[in-house]
Amino acid sequence: MGEVHAIRQGEPIVGYELSGGILRLTLQNPPANALSLAMMQLLLDHLQSARDDVAVRVIIVDSAQKLFSAGHDLKELSAHRKDADRGRDFFEKTMQLCAELMQAIVRHPKPVIAAVNGLATAAGCQLVASCDLAICTDKSTFCTPGVNIGLFCSTPMVALSRNVSRKQAMEMLLTGETIDASTAREFGLVNRVVPQEYLGPIVRKYAQTIAAKSPLTVKIGKEAFYRQVEMGLTEAYEYAAQVMVDNMLALDAEEGINAFIEKRQPEWKGE
Amino acid sequence: MGEVHAIRQGEPIVGYELSGGILRLTLQNPPANALSLAMMQLLLDHLQSARDDVAVRVIIVDSAQKLFSAGHDLKELSAHRKDADRGRDFFEKTMQLCAELMQAIVRHPKPVIAAVNGLATAAGCQLVASCDLAICTDKSTFCTPGVNIGLFCSTPMVALSRNVSRKQAMEMLLTGETIDASTAREFGLVNRVVPQEYLGPIVRKYAQTIAAKSPLTVKIGKEAFYRQVEMGLTEAYEYAAQVMVDNMLALDAEEGINAFIEKRQPEWKGE
Amino acid sequence: MGEVHAIRQGEPIVGYELSGGILRLTLQNPPANALSLAMMQLLLDHLQSARDDVAVRVIIVDSAQKLFSAGHDLKELSAHRKDADRGRDFFEKTMQLCAELMQAIVRHPKPVIAAVNGLATAAGCQLVASCDLAICTDKSTFCTPGVNIGLFCSTPMVALSRNVSRKQAMEMLLTGETIDASTAREFGLVNRVVPQEYLGPIVRKYAQTIAAKSPLTVKIGKEAFYRQVEMGLTEAYEYAAQVMVDNMLALDAEEGINAFIEKRQPEWKGE
Repeated sequence: MGEVHAIRQGEPIVGYELSGGILRLTLQNPPANALSLAMMQLLLDHLQSARDDVAVRVIIVDSAQKLFSAGHDLKELSAHRKDADRGRDFFEKTMQLCAELMQAIVRHPKPVIAAVNGLATAAGCQLVASCDLAICTDKSTFCTPGVNIGLFCSTPMVALSRNVSRKQAMEMLLTGETIDASTAREFGLVNRVVPQEYLGPIVRKYAQTIAAKSPLTVKIGKEAFYRQVEMGLTEAYEYAAQVMVDNMLALDAEEGINAFIEKRQPEWKGE
Repeated sequence: MGEVHAIRQGEPIVGYELSGGILRLTLQNPPANALSLAMMQLLLDHLQSARDDVAVRVIIVDSAQKLFSAGHDLKELSAHRKDADRGRDFFEKTMQLCAELMQAIVRHPKPVIAAVNGLATAAGCQLVASCDLAICTDKSTFCTPGVNIGLFCSTPMVALSRNVSRKQAMEMLLTGETIDASTAREFGLVNRVVPQEYLGPIVRKYAQTIAAKSPLTVKIGKEAFYRQVEMGLTEAYEYAAQVMVDNMLALDAEEGINAFIEKRQPEWKGE
Repeated sequence: MGEVHAIRQGEPIVGYELSGGILRLTLQNPPANALSLAMMQLLLDHLQSARDDVAVRVIIVDSAQKLFSAGHDLKELSAHRKDADRGRDFFEKTMQLCAELMQAIVRHPKPVIAAVNGLATAAGCQLVASCDLAICTDKSTFCTPGVNIGLFCSTPMVALSRNVSRKQAMEMLLTGETIDASTAREFGLVNRVVPQEYLGPIVRKYAQTIAAKSPLTVKIGKEAFYRQVEMGLTEAYEYAAQVMVDNMLALDAEEGINAFIEKRQPEWKGE
């Protein structure tokens, strides 16, 4: 993470490394880490198996190449124009899998952190926007350039417009131009910008911080966050108050509050 | 406000001071201005009686201690674990009263300004987020650290996520870490950061500015703001256009527009 | 644009200039570019005829005076207080036309860019907020001061609160005070702030950039943007994925993607 490493022959297009509660999924699909059908399916599979894996507390999505991801695989998409249906079926499969992948991140019980080192474009930018947190190097750039090739970034904008204000999102979408890392932070697309040599350590620090919390509490909270944010205020409070009561009655809240009052470290039971 | 004053023996846990149309409610529940059940009920009572009190035009919520508020009273909550129902009933009462208090601010016909001097955490941070405006000292800090004690800040996030963008809110909620005053301003949680000695005068200036407007107009506008913000664009315009027509037909708009055209000060009738 | 030019006798209150796919609508209703009924109707007429005009690819709204627009024509509104219905009918006509105009911009198939040179106030500020993009000079200022004259900016806030965060919008609405250009950019109300002499060239550059894209793609994307932004995440992805598939099957996407792969300029068919 942060360091560009050579991809060995026969390595899968998504690297998998699990250590200390932190699952690191590495995009390694040269040359552009394109989100091909195979890449999206593999990411989704890893996310699905991590849902109930108690060994996984936090997920990092990073990349092996000198870029994060250039989005969909245009050559793969174009090749299907020769199909009998001019590609409709394959395009539908691609767009639905993409939507499923992005929602799997948002609906995942474990926090997902994007560690961005270089260009994140189109569905690659959407992947960053879909993660709960994102940290990038100061050389990273972001764009939604579909408009340049006649294909508006309509699914990327679902994630983008839930991170970035309307005029800022529209500027990226209508001009297709690239924003730099500090603009991305200002817009709310990433949480933090760091020099390249710090990307690894700082993302790890975030991941370790979150991995030390009660997984049950984090799961309750993340799920509640994305649900209440779509509700009106009254409904959101009714829902969140109930979540809070249930959370209070869990063993981890009892332990956590006792530990706090007794000034000691809590021991999470995950219940 | 801004000045830390000693709390006299027998003083209520919420100070009440009404002067020049400005009601100042002061959190003074040592040592942490915890939002205990009694504190929330008293704040709510003051807010309810201020609704129809024509002497109240603007409300300030500030604090007497060296912090704003540390949120719920964890000892009070924990004590109820010994109840027959393990505390469920008391936790429900607490969360519902909290939700009621925060919504009473949003639905209040008079603008509510938070004057923050020091730490605002969990439900204390939610209180700041729930106010219409917030001004804080440059030493103030904000956090939603429930995740650290196994109790995710699920009701605070209802208010927080309606002030702060998703990734920024998620960073505060998942890490439990503290943001400083200038970050809070950048995120949209507070309107302005001032040196401690200016907190009193600047909050008073805001309050006086708003107190000089037509109370009827302010009431119409504040109510319409929070209603339309939850609607789709078409519905919001249908609703707001009707609000605007009704407002035009009120005496205060006639007086205000005439005064503007005649270059004189308006005299509000509140009708 | 950017240059203040004398308005000739007999000129319409909205200037119309079409060149190179860029339609420039200039507010020229001295002294304050008030959005009178006639002004709003003329703007709406121009927007409506531009909908299906293939010669129009991008629309710029700028101003001829030393300000952008001071909003509704208060003298025109006040004059109707003498009507039998105290003006209700005229006020309704005005507010509905205003809401129709602002939504015509949002629903317009072609991007609309506000080029702001000077004060944009009340419905003038709403006009800026309603455009897809906004670029202003560093001397420009913005406010929603209706509260000062007893008439809360309730329709302007529909647009404002969809650009600017809640506390920031409430500060503008409750105090009626003016923000400067750099604050407007920070709040998300404008995309870019430029010195006055650059306003013309930079807005033109944005317009030319967008005019060079496939008009079909831009139309698909702009419509999808404002529709999906009002949906929940699941619904937004279902909708956007279908938009993306249809877009893929259009000739312009085929041409655009082929041109990209073949490293040549695309030739848009608009189909």
